[in-house]
Parts: sequence; structure tokens; C-alpha cells
Amino acid sequence: MKFLHTADWHIGKKLHGFDLHEEQDDAYQQILQIALANKVDAVVVAGDLYDRSLPSEDSVKQLNHMLIDLNLTNHFPVLAISGNHDSATRLHVGSEWYAQTNYFLNTELADAFEPVELGNTQFFLLPYFEPWQARNVFEDDSIKTVEQAMTLVVNRQQKAFKAGMKHVLIAHFFAAGSSQTDSETKVVVGGLNAVPLDLLGAFDYVALGHLHNHRALTDDKIKYSGSPVKFSLSEADEQKGVWIVDTDAGTTTYVPIKPLRDVVNLTGSFEELTDPETYDKLDRDAYYGVTLTDKAIIPDVMNRLRQVYPRIVSLDRQNGRDELPTVQTVDPTLAPMALFGKFFEHVNDDEMSEQQQKWAEQGLQEAEHED
Amino acid sequence: MKFLHTADWHIGKKLHGFDLHEEQDDAYQQILQIALANKVDAVVVAGDLYDRSLPSEDSVKQLNHMLIDLNLTNHFPVLAISGNHDSATRLHVGSEWYAQTNYFLNTELADAFEPVELGNTQFFLLPYFEPWQARNVFEDDSIKTVEQAMTLVVNRQQKAFKAGMKHVLIAHFFAAGSSQTDSETKVVVGGLNAVPLDLLGAFDYVALGHLHNHRALTDDKIKYSGSPVKFSLSEADEQKGVWIVDTDAGTTTYVPIKPLRDVVNLTGSFEELTDPETYDKLDRDAYYGVTLTDKAIIPDVMNRLRQVYPRIVSLDRQNGRDELPTVQTVDPTLAPMALFGKFFEHVNDDEMSEQQQKWAEQGLQEAEHED
Repeated sequence: MKFLHTADWHIGKKLHGFDLHEEQDDAYQQILQIALANKVDAVVVAGDLYDRSLPSEDSVKQLNHMLIDLNLTNHFPVLAISGNHDSATRLHVGSEWYAQTNYFLNTELADAFEPVELGNTQFFLLPYFEPWQARNVFEDDSIKTVEQAMTLVVNRQQKAFKAGMKHVLIAHFFAAGSSQTDSETKVVVGGLNAVPLDLLGAFDYVALGHLHNHRALTDDKIKYSGSPVKFSLSEADEQKGVWIVDTDAGTTTYVPIKPLRDVVNLTGSFEELTDPETYDKLDRDAYYGVTLTDKAIIPDVMNRLRQVYPRIVSLDRQNGRDELPTVQTVDPTLAPMALFGKFFEHVNDDEMSEQQQKWAEQGLQEAEHED
Repeated sequence: MKFLHTADWHIGKKLHGFDLHEEQDDAYQQILQIALANKVDAVVVAGDLYDRSLPSEDSVKQLNHMLIDLNLTNHFPVLAISGNHDSATRLHVGSEWYAQTNYFLNTELADAFEPVELGNTQFFLLPYFEPWQARNVFEDDSIKTVEQAMTLVVNRQQKAFKAGMKHVLIAHFFAAGSSQTDSETKVVVGGLNAVPLDLLGAFDYVALGHLHNHRALTDDKIKYSGSPVKFSLSEADEQKGVWIVDTDAGTTTYVPIKPLRDVVNLTGSFEELTDPETYDKLDRDAYYGVTLTDKAIIPDVMNRLRQVYPRIVSLDRQNGRDELPTVQTVDPTLAPMALFGKFFEHVNDDEMSEQQQKWAEQGLQEAEHED
């Protein structure tokens, strides 16, 4: 059994207000090409298909197109679960029909014990769940944590294990010992909700979703695929991609996805960053987190930087910034025009031109007439 | 070809704040039984499956259960379209998979020209659309009304007509000459948006949705099914049900649906309506629109009526009501306790009891202390 393991598509996600629609379409196309090139038997999507429980109509349309393309057009069996960002109920609609064409989507803990059998492999589809759901399913009010629940979940799953078959778990949780980044929402606040790896020893492979960095966990058989797209500046230096898993050969290969527009941290002085010598060597279409080394006040700095880098997602100062002059440093007894002139200089680091002076005088006169 | 024609399920709809979940489940069960008893070849749902473009998770679950039951469990081919209350995009998700098991759901005008063929019949699934969508599909900016669009729609559909087959149109619009009730939202405000019946002469049957009364239009072959549930007081006297259509025999039979809880207009004096002689003969579980013949002020009237009829959805007076005494009729110079006493009498039509006087005095004293 050879399959592709991806997760955390987060369709609909924005990066500091920038729509990632095109990035996600591009990443999907690469995933499809990887699946085709590797002739996989199935594609696993381990949760967080959408970014929100109530996705927009555009997001609904986008994900639907991807899944139609993957399952109905290219005939890949698809094995998917809901993550903590998905609405299990909304995502579930249609799943009874999807199964007719080998698109298995599970959103219910109760359905995690009946494996999907493809070839020589039993896939257990365990969606993101919270302890109260485990209390209901196991009729056991003593279950307070995901860790406790997982002991019962794995025990019950193992009862369905068939000898001579491979066993793969698809799940969406925080595995103990993993490292987190900014763009993941913590699952279940409080409680002992990290799942210890030794609980998962029965499986030949565990395809995890939730953490966006595939290096968050280093284990031979228990792996995060990471997200196919960079969703925050803290992911700037990560390599995105998917796992190609061959349970017969016992191999796992990480195949990279090339970002359509990269996410990059950029540090330098304003002068350097706006110098063609610098930016001609850069991909100006990328999303930039800019850190300025200057301390000086730079008038209209964001707009001027965006003329060079249209997709700046954040702007910081490495060494702090000189204090903005406060109104108190200006003599408030000055005549309105003189006062405004001082204000203009402070904000723009420059004197008004003649034309600007005319406009200001005109404006002040009109304001007086209104009194 | 024998099929059941229903429409306007409006899953999620409330009746003056009362949840109709149980009524809708019950009506669905009756529809299923009618389909089974009549051994129909298909079930037609002519739009407005949901009541809102963004249905709640409960509504999503409820409709999904009905359609799974109808199509996957009972194996009825289902032919459905989106209505003006549905989000075409959200409803559309999954439809590529649904078609695999003969559940045909069309939400796009562009897909209304490729008929679904079942047995000897071509079904044309025309979802609710607005003139701008017709302008896009026909690439004709002169289309301003649904009437203009429908001429083009029917022309294009007729090109797909096969000789020797029956032709059925499933649509969701306002047919000229129909009568409207309160609970339907007007489709496309303004413009010439009534569809003349003579445009529809080419079809052997036109299964319409939108109007909730199956008697809204009287035509042998062009019919509204009406909603399966009463959704407003103006529908109180309507008989709800579904059409059983046999295109070979050329017959249409209206099969009634019995309301789980009826919607009833009830007129009488307060004394009559709260008299066991009256209400013992009534189904007190029904939804009542109460019209009182009294003119007198009746203290706490709604609560007292609801003790008899728990599901009152509106309360009116047939002959107007005596004017409520205004504060001006009370001497504002009275001491607080006396003033409150007057107020109590006006509101309750009765004097305070000794215990009530004690409470009032206590309350006023506490209020004074707070000063």
C-alpha cells in the first residue's frame, strides 16, 4: 500500500488579510501531480480541510473542486477526517454518498473503529474529538483527557485488526513531544491533551494532522505531514510538502511543495531594502515580514515599502524607534498656519511645498468660515 | 413514469419562534410512506430545501438524514433543485457524488439544459435564478426579467427534447396568475418576474416550487405542490400534501399530509376560550392564532391563554381594546406607596393583597435606603 499523506489544507485561511486562494490552488495542483507521479493507491488528508467551521461560499466551492478532481476525475481513493478547525456536522454532509466512490470522510469518533480496507491495509479514520465525545461513545464519565480517551480508542481499534494486514491510523491531535508554531490553534485548552507516542505502537503508520511543520515530530512511523502552504511568518523557514508512504517497503519519503509565493522574513535598513541592488535579487511577489534596523522616524514608511514589496504582512523595528514628537513639543500658542506647518514637518520630515502651503491656507480659511 | 412531487421543505423554518423540527420530520415520514405506497419511480423536490442560505448545523443534519433515507436507504431516485431560500453554492457540495446513486441536485442555471433521463421521461432541473445569471449564461445583456429569460431557457431545453419521451420541468418561480400567501418571500423584487403559463406548454408536466399553497395555481399540467408543513397563520386553512404524477396515464393525484400539530385561527371571548367546554373539544397542542372578541383589558392575558394553549403564535383583538389607562390619569403627587398601588390596579385589574402590599412596602423602603 502506497499512499500520499497530507493535512491542514485550511481552505479559506488568510495571511494577515491576504487571501491565499491562489497559493492553495497551486499547492493542490502540486499534490495531485505528486500523487500521479508516485502512482499512489490513496490520498490521506488528516484534518483541517477548512480553516473555519463556517467556511465562505468561495471556500466551499474551492475545496469541493479539489475533491471532485482528486476522487471523481482522477479516481484516487481519498481518506479524510475532520480537524479542530472543521465543523464535523457541516463537513459530514454527503459523506454517505462519497463512500460510493471510495472517498471516505469520517467526522465522528463513533465511526473510528470500523476500518476502511484498501488493498492489504486497514485505515482507521479518527477525527479530531474532545473528551466529552469520548465520554459519550465509551459511556464512561471518568474520561477527562484526550490521553485517557486514546487508550480506549486504540484498544477498541485493535479489536478490528486483521492479521496479515497493515494498520494505518489517520488522526488529528497533538502528539507528545511535538513542537508548535504560531499558526496552529491549541486543541482543547487545558487538560492533559498530548497523546503519548507509545499508545500508537500498534500501527504500521500514523498519519497525523494539526501541526503545520512536518518536522514538529521526529518518529519513524508517526508523522505530521505539515500544511501544504506556509500560513504564518513563523513558518517562513519550513519546507512544505507531503509524505509518500509505502507500508510494504516500509519507506516514507518527504516530497516538497514549492510555494507559489513564499513567506519570507526580511531584515535591513530602509535604505537597503528600497535599493534596487537589494530588491532586484529578491522575489518581490513574496509575503514579507519586514524588520527595519533603523531607529529613525520614516514618514509614510509602510506605503513606501509596499511600493517595492506589495505583500508586506508585518513591519517591525529591530532596535526600537525614535520617539515620535508629541504635540507638547510644539508651542500651542502659535497661529493655526504655523502650528500646522510644525505638525506637517514632524509627520513628513520635510517642509510644505508652496503648493501645499496654499492648500493648507485655503483649508484653514474654509474651516474659519464654517465657524 | 410515476413520481412524487413535493417542494418548499424549508428545513430550519420557525413559526413565530416555535421550532418546527418535529413537524418537518413527521411530514418527511409521511412523504416517504406515500412514495412507498404509490411505488413511485422518483421523488421530485422543487426547491427551498432549507429555509436559509446558511442553515444551522441542526438543519444540515436533519435534511441530510432525510435525503440519505430517501435515496440511499430506500433507493428512490431524487430530482431536486435549489430555491430562492437556498444557497446554490452550499447546497451544490457533494452533488457530483449524489448523482452516482441517482440523486440529481441542480443548483446552476447552466446545467438546466441537459436533462436527467429516467425511464421514458426527460427531467429538466431548473433551479431558482435571477436575471443576471441568465445574462451570463445566454451572453445577452438585454435580459432584464425572468419572463424574458424563460423564453430562452425553454427554447434551449426543447432542443434536447427526444421524440417519444415525456418531458418534465422542475422549477422554482412565480407563475403568472398564482395567488400568494404570507410565508413566501417574493422572488426578485421588482421587474416582470411572473412566468406566463403559455411559455410552459411544451412540457408534459411542470413541477413547481415557491408557493406554499398547492391551490395557488389551477392548471392541469403546471402545478405547485405546496409546502408539506403549514408555515404561517395565513396557511391555516390549506390542505398540505404532495402530488402523485403519472405521465403515462396522464393523471395527477393530490395526497394529503396530516399535520403533526395543526395551525389554527381561533376566535372567541377570553371567557369562552378558557372554558373547558371549549378547549376540551380542541387540540390544545396546535399552533393558535388567537383573536379575542373582548374589548376589555385582561391582565396577564397571554400567559393565562398559554396555560390552556401552550403554542399561541399571535394574539389579536377583533373589536379593538379599551385604552390602557395612562400614567397621566394617576395623580403624580401621590406618595410612592399610593402611586404604586394605583399602578398595580391598572395593570392587574385588581387591588394588592395584604401580602403584596407588604412586599411593595419592603421594596420601596429598600429603594429609599439605597438613596
